[in-house]
Amino acid sequence: MAEVESVDARTGNVRALVGVETSPQQVDAICLLAHEAFRKLHKRDRSWRAKLIRGMADSLAARREDIVAIADAETGLGADRIDGELTRTCFQLRMFAGVVEEGSFVEAIIDHSGDTAMGPRPDLRRMLVPIGPVAVFGASNFPLAFSVPGGDTAAALAAGCTVVVKAHESHPDTSRLCHAAMQEAAERLGAPKGTIGIVYGRPAGSQLVQHPSVSAVGFTGSVQGGRALMALIEQRTQPIPFYGELGSVNPLVVSEGAAAERAEEIGRGLASSVTLGAGQFCTKPGVAFVPSGADGDRVVSAAAEVIESQPGTVMLNAGITKSFAQGVNTLIRQHVVRRVASGQMDGVAEDIPVAQLLEVHLDELTEGMVEECFGPIAIVVRYDGGAHLLAAIDKLPHSLTATLHTAADLTDVDESLRVALESRCGRLVYNGFPTGVAVSWAQNHGGGWPASNSLHTSVGATAVRRFQRPLAWQNAPQEVLPVELRDETTDIIRRIDGTLQVPAVIAQLAQPDPREGT
Amino acid sequence: MAEVESVDARTGNVRALVGVETSPQQVDAICLLAHEAFRKLHKRDRSWRAKLIRGMADSLAARREDIVAIADAETGLGADRIDGELTRTCFQLRMFAGVVEEGSFVEAIIDHSGDTAMGPRPDLRRMLVPIGPVAVFGASNFPLAFSVPGGDTAAALAAGCTVVVKAHESHPDTSRLCHAAMQEAAERLGAPKGTIGIVYGRPAGSQLVQHPSVSAVGFTGSVQGGRALMALIEQRTQPIPFYGELGSVNPLVVSEGAAAERAEEIGRGLASSVTLGAGQFCTKPGVAFVPSGADGDRVVSAAAEVIESQPGTVMLNAGITKSFAQGVNTLIRQHVVRRVASGQMDGVAEDIPVAQLLEVHLDELTEGMVEECFGPIAIVVRYDGGAHLLAAIDKLPHSLTATLHTAADLTDVDESLRVALESRCGRLVYNGFPTGVAVSWAQNHGGGWPASNSLHTSVGATAVRRFQRPLAWQNAPQEVLPVELRDETTDIIRRIDGTLQVPAVIAQLAQPDPREGT
Repeated sequence: MAEVESVDARTGNVRALVGVETSPQQVDAICLLAHEAFRKLHKRDRSWRAKLIRGMADSLAARREDIVAIADAETGLGADRIDGELTRTCFQLRMFAGVVEEGSFVEAIIDHSGDTAMGPRPDLRRMLVPIGPVAVFGASNFPLAFSVPGGDTAAALAAGCTVVVKAHESHPDTSRLCHAAMQEAAERLGAPKGTIGIVYGRPAGSQLVQHPSVSAVGFTGSVQGGRALMALIEQRTQPIPFYGELGSVNPLVVSEGAAAERAEEIGRGLASSVTLGAGQFCTKPGVAFVPSGADGDRVVSAAAEVIESQPGTVMLNAGITKSFAQGVNTLIRQHVVRRVASGQMDGVAEDIPVAQLLEVHLDELTEGMVEECFGPIAIVVRYDGGAHLLAAIDKLPHSLTATLHTAADLTDVDESLRVALESRCGRLVYNGFPTGVAVSWAQNHGGGWPASNSLHTSVGATAVRRFQRPLAWQNAPQEVLPVELRDETTDIIRRIDGTLQVPAVIAQLAQPDPREGT
Repeated sequence: MAEVESVDARTGNVRALVGVETSPQQVDAICLLAHEAFRKLHKRDRSWRAKLIRGMADSLAARREDIVAIADAETGLGADRIDGELTRTCFQLRMFAGVVEEGSFVEAIIDHSGDTAMGPRPDLRRMLVPIGPVAVFGASNFPLAFSVPGGDTAAALAAGCTVVVKAHESHPDTSRLCHAAMQEAAERLGAPKGTIGIVYGRPAGSQLVQHPSVSAVGFTGSVQGGRALMALIEQRTQPIPFYGELGSVNPLVVSEGAAAERAEEIGRGLASSVTLGAGQFCTKPGVAFVPSGADGDRVVSAAAEVIESQPGTVMLNAGITKSFAQGVNTLIRQHVVRRVASGQMDGVAEDIPVAQLLEVHLDELTEGMVEECFGPIAIVVRYDGGAHLLAAIDKLPHSLTATLHTAADLTDVDESLRVALESRCGRLVYNGFPTGVAVSWAQNHGGGWPASNSLHTSVGATAVRRFQRPLAWQNAPQEVLPVELRDETTDIIRRIDGTLQVPAVIAQLAQPDPREGT
């Protein structure tokens, strides 16, 4: 098998050998073990599961120094950013532990038997149960929060699933260390062997999504990579849910009133959001609609000033660096987009990317211009009047976010524009910037294709719903029911005979939330 | 275009011409109108939506005599059954109206801005919003409850979606009349034009699932038909959710203790469930595991006695009649299954199907035997000992239901069998029979492929979730928020800063429920 190399993002040199790619026999054994472990988890209650997830957070936090050093070397994102991401990741795990304890996520519903207007009804009890072993694919741009110990893993474990993670090629050593930490916690708490597994290499990833034991897939990556996995899933005898977060242009609209009121503030904020973390966030605003005329010019000038002050920065890996350069080239040469500003190139090595601000008029806008270009780049689209703008919004691909800057009194934005933006995104930001995704109950990190499959979020408490399925019991004896559906249970929120019943004391979930872009 | 003929199920004769198949231009216009109407529905509140759905139920009930006569002629199901199905259908619509009024289905969540352990957090408000225009395909076996005015339509309207129904070829006149009734209610209540549309013909159905305006598809039918639609959906630029209920063998297990305690009762109940409605229910038990030995023999004898007393019955249409005959033939000839009992053939026309009870030993069981055979037929699989049974259960395709008959003290059924059955179905019935699907809060009518896509039910209050997507607003001014997310709103259940808050008075949803097989 091919060796798995850990590469230093800054130098391009191999910094360590992590091992060899997982063989087909090993992948099969890991998936079967995950299936066996899944059945054993049935015997554990929610409080144990919460303990397991918190124990994993503790184990990760205990290895902070090593994780930060290795992840920084593999991604070039900087120790401060990685340190914050680890804090966010541990917070996220603990939040899901709280969700598990609170218990409403199982959506327990009891309809007692009895005579109804339509005749006699049996006793019916329904709740959401874990879907089965989940395959989680790590993302290049978040080596922790969207990778081995990230949101998909946390949500799947919270649901009661076992997990097999596919380490991202870009940070295998970080993946190995995080997995070891979580595995250690699992062993310490007596989790069934196979509760969390890991595989390395693209062939192993392909095998994973086709394995009969795998019941759902969480993926954060490119449209191309996602489409390839979907094609493999379609070949399965039994199709399974694929939760892909694949690409997002995150349109930002500046109304005429907003430009008149605070052009410079908006322009500077836009450029900062575009260049944050070298533009390697899936919520990076990639296309900004700015009015024609003097106020709009001020927005663009302010943005250009910030862009021009940006030094070149290393990107996550050589492939992403190359794709960014190609993307910029395509936009400027093929699509004849004007370059408004570039980052500082003085003293920057030739292969180090610099930020880019491009511009077109709305009349020149074509489909190819509004595809995600991963990295520190945005296109400003200048528009005249609301009707043209509305038509353009309706043609945009769906995104994780959309952003609307309005006049303070909102008079310059009509309902049709708001509705159009709402129909194109999973989160609509008013008078702010989309980078920064709080992990909380109300968060939604999703959207229509290619942002995601519309129906779910991959960040926040409700992300757990992706890895649950409903199951009903009819006339079941009490002793075979899950504890959440037994008559004796009184500590969770349940709907009984149509009415939601909340116990007097429901532990309030801790609500501190991280803000960190994704 | 081809003519749309209404055929009498009993005679095979054309009883009426309904019109011609919908042309591609018409389908396009209908979908665009559904899209326009969807945007207009944004301005209507939940109480208006509930009124619309109730108004549709009233309109249908007002046409009871015509609907029953036409649907009976087109399906041959009998006036009593159709009459009950219409009652169920109206009940279902009114139940969804109650769900809309109660409001918890929007899952409103508010996280106020503030400082958290992870830094400042913006104001985030999330709820489930309607996904967009929904295409609903009528089912042959439920001309009302799973067709034009059926559960998918009711759930989609409850979510706030517009609907385009594809009339089933087997009952186009019923479809036309039901659509006219609902359309009349929509007009009376001032719904936007295009709130509910209808198309006729298979080409129109194919076009429907590929139309850019359509956001989700509800389908009840064959695996083959479902796969064909899925292939069309995969060709879309933007894939959309496909909710297919495609096939289900509904395994039923009789434990040794159950057979010893009440062999005759179980055998008779099984045969009645198999032959109910000529076996044309998707919850018909198709495979029954019965212990070898004398007690098991008594189960089979009792079932055989009921089967032999059954007269031949007309099926829904000529295609289904033919498929049933082929299915029986394949099982007996290719798979060498023994015939235990047949329905009465005296005085029955040659092409009228009669009920069938077949038998194999577990050692002889092959995959081909446990595919759904639509109609009054079941295979009894005789088993010796739990280990073999467990292995066989683990190989079954997923089903809408599974049924377990146990000894009164449950001692003869261990946890592994229960867990295996739970993993194979969407509803586990204890000591009963799976036909009969109550429309209530706790119902689950779903399961893994090919029963459905696992994640959702198509019957009961929570079926509405299929046609919703989450959307979050960040730092949005109050006046642009949906009413459910505004500070002033106090009449619905919401999660605020992590805690579920239930208003003092929540209208209790009416809970009378129909029991009618599906």
